[in-house]
Amino acid sequence: MHKLTKKRQGSDTSSGCSSLIELELSPQRNNSDLDESQLTKEESLKLRNQHYASVTSLFFRHDPLMIVKGKKQYMYDENGNQYLDCINNVAHVGHCHPAVTAAATQQISQLYTNCRYLNDNLSTYAHRITELFPQPLNVCFLTNSGSEANDLALQLARAHSGGTEVITLDAAYHGHTRSCMEISPYKWVDKVKDKPSYVHVASSPDVYGGKHADAENPAHEYAMDVKHIINNIKQDGKQLSSFIMESMQSCGGQILPPSGYMLEAFRHVHEAGGLCIADEVQVGFGRVGTHYWAFETQGALPDIVTIGKPMGNGHPISGVITSQKVAESFRKISDHYFNTFAGNPVSCAIGHAVLDVISDEKLLKHAEIVGNYALQGMQKLKEKHQLIGDVRGIGLFLGMELVKDRTKKTPATDEAYEILHRMKERFIIISVDGPNNNVLKFKPPMCFSKDNTDQLLQALDDVITNVSASDDSSSNKKSMEVPKVKRAVLVQ
Amino acid sequence: MHKLTKKRQGSDTSSGCSSLIELELSPQRNNSDLDESQLTKEESLKLRNQHYASVTSLFFRHDPLMIVKGKKQYMYDENGNQYLDCINNVAHVGHCHPAVTAAATQQISQLYTNCRYLNDNLSTYAHRITELFPQPLNVCFLTNSGSEANDLALQLARAHSGGTEVITLDAAYHGHTRSCMEISPYKWVDKVKDKPSYVHVASSPDVYGGKHADAENPAHEYAMDVKHIINNIKQDGKQLSSFIMESMQSCGGQILPPSGYMLEAFRHVHEAGGLCIADEVQVGFGRVGTHYWAFETQGALPDIVTIGKPMGNGHPISGVITSQKVAESFRKISDHYFNTFAGNPVSCAIGHAVLDVISDEKLLKHAEIVGNYALQGMQKLKEKHQLIGDVRGIGLFLGMELVKDRTKKTPATDEAYEILHRMKERFIIISVDGPNNNVLKFKPPMCFSKDNTDQLLQALDDVITNVSASDDSSSNKKSMEVPKVKRAVLVQ
Repeated sequence: MHKLTKKRQGSDTSSGCSSLIELELSPQRNNSDLDESQLTKEESLKLRNQHYASVTSLFFRHDPLMIVKGKKQYMYDENGNQYLDCINNVAHVGHCHPAVTAAATQQISQLYTNCRYLNDNLSTYAHRITELFPQPLNVCFLTNSGSEANDLALQLARAHSGGTEVITLDAAYHGHTRSCMEISPYKWVDKVKDKPSYVHVASSPDVYGGKHADAENPAHEYAMDVKHIINNIKQDGKQLSSFIMESMQSCGGQILPPSGYMLEAFRHVHEAGGLCIADEVQVGFGRVGTHYWAFETQGALPDIVTIGKPMGNGHPISGVITSQKVAESFRKISDHYFNTFAGNPVSCAIGHAVLDVISDEKLLKHAEIVGNYALQGMQKLKEKHQLIGDVRGIGLFLGMELVKDRTKKTPATDEAYEILHRMKERFIIISVDGPNNNVLKFKPPMCFSKDNTDQLLQALDDVITNVSASDDSSSNKKSMEVPKVKRAVLVQ
Repeated sequence: MHKLTKKRQGSDTSSGCSSLIELELSPQRNNSDLDESQLTKEESLKLRNQHYASVTSLFFRHDPLMIVKGKKQYMYDENGNQYLDCINNVAHVGHCHPAVTAAATQQISQLYTNCRYLNDNLSTYAHRITELFPQPLNVCFLTNSGSEANDLALQLARAHSGGTEVITLDAAYHGHTRSCMEISPYKWVDKVKDKPSYVHVASSPDVYGGKHADAENPAHEYAMDVKHIINNIKQDGKQLSSFIMESMQSCGGQILPPSGYMLEAFRHVHEAGGLCIADEVQVGFGRVGTHYWAFETQGALPDIVTIGKPMGNGHPISGVITSQKVAESFRKISDHYFNTFAGNPVSCAIGHAVLDVISDEKLLKHAEIVGNYALQGMQKLKEKHQLIGDVRGIGLFLGMELVKDRTKKTPATDEAYEILHRMKERFIIISVDGPNNNVLKFKPPMCFSKDNTDQLLQALDDVITNVSASDDSSSNKKSMEVPKVKRAVLVQ
């Protein structure tokens, strides 16, 4: 571990404040006598608050979890407490899977350089990942994050279509770069001010609480929303570039589009000369169980697919898969594309190892079986608890929407946060999301078992029983990640 | 290694073409019988050409180097040939440094999750990295690439200044995301079409071949270019957001701004309410020898600094360092900032290890000593060879500009590529860059020694002697990374 005050070069050793508030008045430090090899939770939090931007996310900010170890579907705090991780879809094949660790370790000691040199790891990974997609999606770019992948996808679509206009879904989240923020209504603090003119927002295809939830054919109605936007774009004399959607919205509230939606929406987009981008950053790599990619559940064929989070089981790797035609359009208008870290031998070795584990441990079938079991259990909870308005999902991508009133579907946001906190007290980590912050999310590592499911369901049953019986459900709201976005319940 | 046809799930096993050209006609594959654990160089290249986007950079594309191992300042091809690496500033403390490998290995097996949980590695790294900056730069964001860091820096500047306009330098390169491409004239294929209206281009402060190279006070003249742009922005009724510059331009041709330039340019920017962003992605972490950060050589104080490449010795990690005030401005207008992979415990452990090695091995002092030695040697070569118009640099950041005529400074681009190829034949890797592709670049791993320098200088002496005597210096031009950008010599 590091005793940085003895090691650092060229820095001052001034003394000063002892809290964040004092720091703002006197921006100096008194950490020079701190032994950082043995930080308490409070010391670690203090250092973070002082030197890591406070706008960054931290779960349970007022009493954050200090996590020091991860193994399979479990995480461990500094006191050795074991938490059941129901939400980390990045630790896809299980936290610190030994096969992934071994691959990383071997390659890190061998070669960790850029893709300007030929290396088998990149060549074989590019082959292998594209083989997992239907034709003509047989060429890829590797990148370092979902944001980079979506940013590049938008550039590809613009190059191929020649258009400028982008259609995105309400409540979508595609990443943190400027380009991604611009197409992520989930992150807009001011829905008018933050929406650039080239961005058009179609309704989220939510069949429980969405705009066309009660329509006879929601898939058709939601697709027609896309069509209407396209018509408006044409009337304005502009050209569509792309329609981008998460194959299943996660931040948007664990939304599964109705059957037929993608096919019909994609058809409208293609007729207008636009490209369809399926963002599989959250839901790809077999999470849905029945298929490797969530768009396949809709029988649709995107022009570009972006992948990320689970791809490296924690390691920064992501990618863009497309056709030779689209890649060629981008090549024609571009100077060489170079991304320093992308496609390095370590990232590719880790990528290979993740695919190996998914295959060797038959994780798709496992996700399908455990996911069905969990969904059935959640449906039983719904029968028992009025608070649960809807349960939905496929594979290990599940959501439970909480409402105060089943008819009006009034979001039960306070209750959702209360449940979240009580689950934490029971050493189970879930999360709350959706436009109204009333959807409990479950997207655990893929090794999540039936026993874990039983534990989760039992805890949920107990906690929901208690919360439903309690009047004081708002106490914990402030200490969680409540965004500033003006959404229904939060502005009340 | 991977025999992917036996492992992959959900993919077809069709057969078809045997070359890239045939592939375009019949987009199917015949790789299913390929044992990818034992690829020849040709097979690896074929797979890459088929499945990895061809717009991506590959050195010596028509006869690329297959690299299988890296150690210290050396790389090794599939036949065990050792190459002296004079250009990889990412492998900062040496390829596969055992201390970095050990830190990565330990942490990968322990915990590899996101920064929504409190973890000492992030807290202590945030503290440690900010301690390396002058006040009030005492808060950081961690990101995954230089592009992500610059993208975020631009967002911070916009939030704090309230402005929209950005001033960048000619020949600048800041990354591959859309936002970064927009401020990177180095990457613009069409200088009129690719320049967004909010972007303004100031002259590169090049004191050898630049606009004000022959002025009495180039620093002042170049800074006045920035001032004139600011005046124009004001006249248009717009507000400056930021002035972004690489503290020393690398892709732009190893450009060291004249003394006093940053101070004066920054003053103009601050007077206009804009923020100054120093991009240290290429040149930071002690490369210049005398200081940890290249902006310090100018005695200037930026508002935001971006760091990247060398930060993880190959591992994807980067960052943005700023003041509490700027970070607070961003927080006020933002929902939570979340970056999935950024600040994970493995990236931070690696970041710590890199800082440890820089300190333990006294790499700043080493870079200063070896850099001075190399610069002196290059100056002697300049005295001997008319082809060398200029040598410049500081620490292990060095450039050698080649000209056909010392008076007219006509770029010797063909000769530069010929030298590059002949150096490769002598197992020494250098690169060619700059707006006219006539600058030989040297930015080796920081463990580069005096013996390596002797080897490099001797080889350069021999090769330049031969190239200068030869008429046939254009044969290798096409096989290197010659950009499509219409620069002086390339359009001939």
